[in-house]
Amino acid sequence: MAEVIPHWLSKRAELAPDQTAIELADGVVYTFQDLMETSQSFARKLRSLGIQKHTKVGILSANQLDMVAAIHALTYLGAVGVLLNTRLTDRELNEQLHDAGVSLILGQERQSGLTAETYTFAAIWELPEKQTDLQHELDLDDAFTIIYTSGTTGTPKGVVHTYGNHWWSAIGSMLNLGLQPQDKWLAVLPFFHVSGLSILLRSVIYGIPVYLMEHYDKQHVHDAIMTKNITIVSVVTNMVRDLLTLLGESRYPDTLRCMLLGGGPAPKALLETAKTKHMPIFQSYGMTETASQIVTLSPADALEKLGSSGKPLFPAQLQIDAPPQNVGEIFVKGPMVTKGYFNREQASQKAIQNGWLATGDLGYMDEDGFLYVVDRRKDLIISGGENIYPTEIESVLALLTGIQEAGVIGRPDEKWGQVPVAFVVLRDSSVTAEAIEAFLRQHLAGYKVPQAIRFLHELPRNASGKLERYQLAGYLNSGG
Amino acid sequence: MAEVIPHWLSKRAELAPDQTAIELADGVVYTFQDLMETSQSFARKLRSLGIQKHTKVGILSANQLDMVAAIHALTYLGAVGVLLNTRLTDRELNEQLHDAGVSLILGQERQSGLTAETYTFAAIWELPEKQTDLQHELDLDDAFTIIYTSGTTGTPKGVVHTYGNHWWSAIGSMLNLGLQPQDKWLAVLPFFHVSGLSILLRSVIYGIPVYLMEHYDKQHVHDAIMTKNITIVSVVTNMVRDLLTLLGESRYPDTLRCMLLGGGPAPKALLETAKTKHMPIFQSYGMTETASQIVTLSPADALEKLGSSGKPLFPAQLQIDAPPQNVGEIFVKGPMVTKGYFNREQASQKAIQNGWLATGDLGYMDEDGFLYVVDRRKDLIISGGENIYPTEIESVLALLTGIQEAGVIGRPDEKWGQVPVAFVVLRDSSVTAEAIEAFLRQHLAGYKVPQAIRFLHELPRNASGKLERYQLAGYLNSGG
Repeated sequence: MAEVIPHWLSKRAELAPDQTAIELADGVVYTFQDLMETSQSFARKLRSLGIQKHTKVGILSANQLDMVAAIHALTYLGAVGVLLNTRLTDRELNEQLHDAGVSLILGQERQSGLTAETYTFAAIWELPEKQTDLQHELDLDDAFTIIYTSGTTGTPKGVVHTYGNHWWSAIGSMLNLGLQPQDKWLAVLPFFHVSGLSILLRSVIYGIPVYLMEHYDKQHVHDAIMTKNITIVSVVTNMVRDLLTLLGESRYPDTLRCMLLGGGPAPKALLETAKTKHMPIFQSYGMTETASQIVTLSPADALEKLGSSGKPLFPAQLQIDAPPQNVGEIFVKGPMVTKGYFNREQASQKAIQNGWLATGDLGYMDEDGFLYVVDRRKDLIISGGENIYPTEIESVLALLTGIQEAGVIGRPDEKWGQVPVAFVVLRDSSVTAEAIEAFLRQHLAGYKVPQAIRFLHELPRNASGKLERYQLAGYLNSGG
Repeated sequence: MAEVIPHWLSKRAELAPDQTAIELADGVVYTFQDLMETSQSFARKLRSLGIQKHTKVGILSANQLDMVAAIHALTYLGAVGVLLNTRLTDRELNEQLHDAGVSLILGQERQSGLTAETYTFAAIWELPEKQTDLQHELDLDDAFTIIYTSGTTGTPKGVVHTYGNHWWSAIGSMLNLGLQPQDKWLAVLPFFHVSGLSILLRSVIYGIPVYLMEHYDKQHVHDAIMTKNITIVSVVTNMVRDLLTLLGESRYPDTLRCMLLGGGPAPKALLETAKTKHMPIFQSYGMTETASQIVTLSPADALEKLGSSGKPLFPAQLQIDAPPQNVGEIFVKGPMVTKGYFNREQASQKAIQNGWLATGDLGYMDEDGFLYVVDRRKDLIISGGENIYPTEIESVLALLTGIQEAGVIGRPDEKWGQVPVAFVVLRDSSVTAEAIEAFLRQHLAGYKVPQAIRFLHELPRNASGKLERYQLAGYLNSGG
């Protein structure tokens, strides 16, 4: 039976009106009462635009208070937030807007190249409030957010998260990390990713402050951890690397009890260095489909099982499609796992069978039941915490008439973990790498544009003609 | 949609096999791995008796490890535990056994006067294990326990708790009290009450030890709090009184962070004394139907709002059937509230409408939203944490042919909070108080037998003939 709970922000404001909900770097503080009133006011203004239950509303913004209010405002209307990555090009965004049926976007700036009308947050604040009933309960089966992920096909698919998915994710994390009176979670990962969004929601569910950063600046993050009584911070690998450099010979305060590391496997050497610096790193494993982490190291095991992503959270289950302790595909199950992709019945049924999500990632479990992720989703490139799907870049390259075929793989990178590299077979030999790059920049977010373009006479393919990307890796070092 | 989670004990053993699950007063310790293996073995032995999914199994025991194993064993079989109060007479027990359709009881001792066959725990251990599939997941909509409560009618009704009810109760409590690595919960309240049972389940869900006491001995409880690193203890009012006396001028260790007080409103003077002794008392409000506490003071408010039961837990809602700040009937709603009474469609529909449970208790909310319980369920007598329903005693008195009519009310009592007192109108004037008491002892648990029997010429009744118990209170002091 669908469970119904009180509206989580209203409830938190009822329980702890004066508790800090959001702390901004400039010292401004919003209590849960403030945040509730702001979000409700924003909701009433949105209602005057006709936004109703189930309306899909795009949100296109860097982390900032208005974005937080907008996200919570949607919960009061029962509308569904389509969270858009600010680094995408207009073409990429329009693809998602079209797919999700978004006709209205809330954002920091007015956009001109998008197919949906954009309203700035400032413009919304100018609107009159419409007297209207706001949701005072949340049905955990209702859809709340849609976040796009390209998957192996290269076609973006919208992962639908219900309130329940987010709720169970927060509860699963709490059962692993505990909940202490002084907890304060630093949020610098973007809220348009589920790893960032989930921090916002945990704050409301747990009743703890979020220390909100608008964008990533390593010195600012370092200083905040040093001086702002942060107890938990969500990080990706390149942030750990930055922070280690800034930390030098000093130590973070003992009140910092968890650096929750997501966004792809971290090099073991880095984890070992972090351990010598007493960084409390808890590696985790998750994806958009699992509403953030679903496998995480526990405080008790973080040091013992360096390199492991831990065990599945309390409400979750994990299976490896292989004999014990062998590498196989990772399957996960639990109430935080999405019920499916928006308007993609077939893809959903393929990905999720009997509640088990086929992640496409490879890993093994050691004899104590700890997960080691060997390789992310086949061919997935993770660069600075952003997922890059080779097929997506390849399909854009195929649009260039001078190109006959192309293959993209990841190259290890000191700073970003990985960066994409393209291998191209030309039809028209006059096409230059510069021209190709310029073309890609028009169509793809900057982080997806290959850092190098190599020319080949033909691509390695197997007997049935399928591109064998792993063979391309051989060319990386050969300079071929 | 019904959520499914991994079997909670197996999952906890997977996550924290070596963590202490149960600590006994004699120093014996069971880890979660031990507890899982013991419970699974017990389950396989029970299966050899034909116990299956949905079978109702009585459990009649004081707190002890075998009882814990028996309770968890039922979860592996999907059987439903009917938790029986050891203080009840055979007549009272048989009423519940008949109602729930119990044909098999697990207990400490063999019983002769019961309509269901009893097996001692020791006898079960002698049975062979039957190879059988054990539940490895729990469907939160499945029934797990039935606990009887008499309600205002005097007829015992079985409150059905699903796994979900218990789960949400545990999560709601965690969101209020937090979860700290060193937590250890002292369980001395009987597991056949939901207040005791819920400690066991929180232990498994949170991954924290239970310090288990077989029965209440004030000195033992006091010593355990002093020396066993207890962080949380569930108490009732008379325990607080006992502990205050034993505490004298000393203080409990600072590691004791919560004394969760249930079982009826506590006198404000007692709470004030406890406050001066730095006892971290969190008053709460709940009942069998709410799977334990549903309204609880928070750590932040415990001292400020002395006398209040707090605010509804995060997943719960509260309404008072009266204008703001006026006394009215208390209604509660939330996923920890029972879906209904066993085989009592009508009573369930009457008690629970649109998810709101009519508690029958009276209270008001102050301007900050804190609940003050003014009076428990109409006429309910709470004696040492046990609920006593006057109608139940009156209906037994009516069985005595020498008695024309009878009324029972509670009298304030220094030790027990309240004790029952009976007012009797005789048909046969030769009947003595001693004879009445002897009769009652045959039919009622000792704690329900009135501490005094007073004789009247007639009972106060209103125009429509309804007994006005509040008028009887006037006779208490008059010696009438």
